[in-house]
Amino acid sequence: MHTGVPCNMDRLYETAAERGPVCVGLDTAAAYIPPAELRRAPSEAEGVFNFNRAIVEATADLAACFKVQIAYYEALGLRGLECYAKTLRFIRERGSLVIADIKRGDIADTAVQYAKAHFEGELEADFVTLSPYMGMDSLEPWFAHAERHGKGAFVLMRTSNRGMGDFQYLKLQEPAPIPRRLYQAVGDRLAEKAQTHRGKYGYGAFGAVVGCTGPEEAAAIRERYDSLFFLIPGYGAQGGGAADAALLLKEGLGGVVNASRSILTAWTGDRSGQKDPGNSAAAEAARKAVLNMRDALRRIPPSGTQ
Amino acid sequence: MHTGVPCNMDRLYETAAERGPVCVGLDTAAAYIPPAELRRAPSEAEGVFNFNRAIVEATADLAACFKVQIAYYEALGLRGLECYAKTLRFIRERGSLVIADIKRGDIADTAVQYAKAHFEGELEADFVTLSPYMGMDSLEPWFAHAERHGKGAFVLMRTSNRGMGDFQYLKLQEPAPIPRRLYQAVGDRLAEKAQTHRGKYGYGAFGAVVGCTGPEEAAAIRERYDSLFFLIPGYGAQGGGAADAALLLKEGLGGVVNASRSILTAWTGDRSGQKDPGNSAAAEAARKAVLNMRDALRRIPPSGTQ
Repeated sequence: MHTGVPCNMDRLYETAAERGPVCVGLDTAAAYIPPAELRRAPSEAEGVFNFNRAIVEATADLAACFKVQIAYYEALGLRGLECYAKTLRFIRERGSLVIADIKRGDIADTAVQYAKAHFEGELEADFVTLSPYMGMDSLEPWFAHAERHGKGAFVLMRTSNRGMGDFQYLKLQEPAPIPRRLYQAVGDRLAEKAQTHRGKYGYGAFGAVVGCTGPEEAAAIRERYDSLFFLIPGYGAQGGGAADAALLLKEGLGGVVNASRSILTAWTGDRSGQKDPGNSAAAEAARKAVLNMRDALRRIPPSGTQ
Repeated sequence: MHTGVPCNMDRLYETAAERGPVCVGLDTAAAYIPPAELRRAPSEAEGVFNFNRAIVEATADLAACFKVQIAYYEALGLRGLECYAKTLRFIRERGSLVIADIKRGDIADTAVQYAKAHFEGELEADFVTLSPYMGMDSLEPWFAHAERHGKGAFVLMRTSNRGMGDFQYLKLQEPAPIPRRLYQAVGDRLAEKAQTHRGKYGYGAFGAVVGCTGPEEAAAIRERYDSLFFLIPGYGAQGGGAADAALLLKEGLGGVVNASRSILTAWTGDRSGQKDPGNSAAAEAARKAVLNMRDALRRIPPSGTQ
């Protein structure tokens, strides 16, 4: 980083190295909250915030970072967005890092406004997720803003959903010996960009979203994009396992693995007898789920030796 | 539409046929507002709303619809989002159609939440813009929700910005006689989808965003995607002209042409002597700009005859 502003990707690398690579996803649907707690809350949005707070308190020492999916908050309207802002603030005030999962992508003038919205002020996050469809000039204002303020971003490359094959896997017509797929063209542009911003662990301030639901290419993706720190969705409820995710890490480093539903709803699988547990029991179950996930990711032998 | 719910794209078609194809973009930066009005407003967000209200009142009878770019509101934090919601409500209560320019695109579970957020409740719009990078399953929940509630969407296909060449123009390796570009692969999937939802004017409930900054392909795009109603950005400040935009219409129909900055800031070019005009002068200038734009679009001879 030539600006002298500390790079958030370095901080994330260090936190993940110390606490493990689990990213706790706060995609908090009302259905994930113990019903008694939701009934007690003055509003659904406040119920969501109370639940998030309990989860964050119970998992912060085990989590590399948190990821907050804004859609679940927007669905509750303006009060939901207030709860989104409160959740981000709570996480950051506790000293943890937070990724705003907003997947923005728009023309440069608009990107300037978005970067102001999500890197400053009431909705401030440490990282954002971005969508590359509109091209590199739609990402540049984020990069410039992030550099000035020590923020970071993860750009969609190879996502974890079933439909990712529709466009991301299209093969390109090009003279290269092995024609690339679209996701590789995106990754190559990001890697090129990352060269100019490599932090002290070799990663650029702008990483990539790579789902762990495609183990067949995972090792090749990890090798090709060694300057990109990965945000890895698809673990747990979406079908990815620890072995799949580990292929996208470098001996446990170089990325964070997100799980949302499987952590937030861990309490529903707890058969300890409580019919309607509170947030504290849900948080305890979430903590156990994060520990199990971290242990599972750590049990995988370093890539190349399996 | 097999649900019996009236299709918003039919309503938009009819409104555009009656009032002309101008879509007024409310990408309202504070810098676009007469300074005296902004100073008088209790907050920047309220200043933005007052300005928007004046613009909407002055142009509603000439505009096919309005488009509100959420980034400009997010940049003002929670009060900005309140202003966003108020602007949408004001437009809809006056009987005009509004496009929420949000360019969302996420996994299906998340898309369900987003659709709830933007097709219902406090942030309700008539149309949204969507990004296709994650694939068709990221769009399906929007389509399903839109069908049930008579809403519509415009999916990014070929955008108006300089960087659109980076990925949208990549050529695909495929056995087709003429290899397609990525934007065509996206358009083809949308057109296929539109076949199952064609309204009474032949357009599906899900159109495409096609910028008017690429006149060389415009006629071919219009011909190839005859079931897709177009949202056409890039007019005015972004460099597209009336002749370019007209190539994407079918004798003036089949799409709406958006302009934002050139309409909102028309008052700054008004040399009538007022040093610090109010919103009413800005609205008057905006009305003239919309009239001029509509006339310019109408003066273009029907495509094929120029």
